[in-house]
Amino acid sequence: MSRKKGRLFVISGPSGTGKGTVCAELLKDIGNEFSVSMTTRAPREGEVHGREYFFVTREEFNANIEAGNFLEHAQVFDNLYGTPKDMVLSRLDRGYNVILDIDVQGGLQVRKAMPEAVLIFILPPSLTELRRRLEGRGTEDPEKVEKRLGEALNEIRLIGEYDYYIVNNDIDEAVALARSIIAAEKAKVPEAVRPLIREYEKETN
Amino acid sequence: MSRKKGRLFVISGPSGTGKGTVCAELLKDIGNEFSVSMTTRAPREGEVHGREYFFVTREEFNANIEAGNFLEHAQVFDNLYGTPKDMVLSRLDRGYNVILDIDVQGGLQVRKAMPEAVLIFILPPSLTELRRRLEGRGTEDPEKVEKRLGEALNEIRLIGEYDYYIVNNDIDEAVALARSIIAAEKAKVPEAVRPLIREYEKETN
Repeated sequence: MSRKKGRLFVISGPSGTGKGTVCAELLKDIGNEFSVSMTTRAPREGEVHGREYFFVTREEFNANIEAGNFLEHAQVFDNLYGTPKDMVLSRLDRGYNVILDIDVQGGLQVRKAMPEAVLIFILPPSLTELRRRLEGRGTEDPEKVEKRLGEALNEIRLIGEYDYYIVNNDIDEAVALARSIIAAEKAKVPEAVRPLIREYEKETN
Repeated sequence: MSRKKGRLFVISGPSGTGKGTVCAELLKDIGNEFSVSMTTRAPREGEVHGREYFFVTREEFNANIEAGNFLEHAQVFDNLYGTPKDMVLSRLDRGYNVILDIDVQGGLQVRKAMPEAVLIFILPPSLTELRRRLEGRGTEDPEKVEKRLGEALNEIRLIGEYDYYIVNNDIDEAVALARSIIAAEKAKVPEAVRPLIREYEKETN
């Protein structure tokens, strides 16, 4: 049997939900890969071009937008970030799942470009708990926490566009459920099989 | 939060694929229940009415068919077997998943009656291996093995109507994948959420 194509998984969720930890754990599994994004922000100490990011100029980034090279892209503060389409597609073709850690707006762009992508939303157990986690980061001033909570609500309003949701009460359980979703998606009977079988049935009956 | 309704899972697959073992393991999990079928066959030594089966007369069985009380029913040799709808629905309402171990024809009847049921097909690793397993049962004569293989092929032709497939190479892995499918199905964003959110978006934009 030829190697099965990989699947594209988008993991989104408000800041403070533990989405980054879930993604990091999934990437330890055999058969999952991360895609390297492109950005216009300057590399930080120790960051390597092509490993953390592809670091490009704003002109190069815009040329990539115009060429339709991104699955999704967004501006965050003064910098542009984007997911190169060819990188994702070549990994999928080689049989790897690709895990994208992107925000909800990015998730919706991916859905449009690749309807077969699987979108997973990470939810906090409650807004009270999310507030506690954001405050617990220490560095956050109250105004920033309120702003983050407002952003979280705006993201959660779009959960209806997602396929799955994971309430992150416990990080181990959240990771286990994400793994179950990936396994189950790979066990789906391919849509393409159905018309073939129905055609066969018609011909033989 | 009110208790979530359970989900109905149908497990089918040709004789010799280990479907019974998968079902038995799933029933050990908290939150899963088996439904008790109705049959016209005589109770065997040790079988209890309402535990293994509801043992009824052919007249009683036919009255239940006419009243539309079955999710699915079938004749196997001289006996009738059926899954009582009210029993399944009351378990789902109480928040339990219901696992039905039924053949493909029964699975298709369930799909028609409850389109939201999740249908899982257990496949043997290969037909050669299935033949080996059927022969390994010792009691099977060659003619019976050929008949079973023919029936297996007829069942497999209908896999396109199923949602998921599990290749049972290793029983522990097969059970783990079935558990993943059940967990993932419970993590799906309910379809009913989508129109509500879209409506809300329209009103607020």
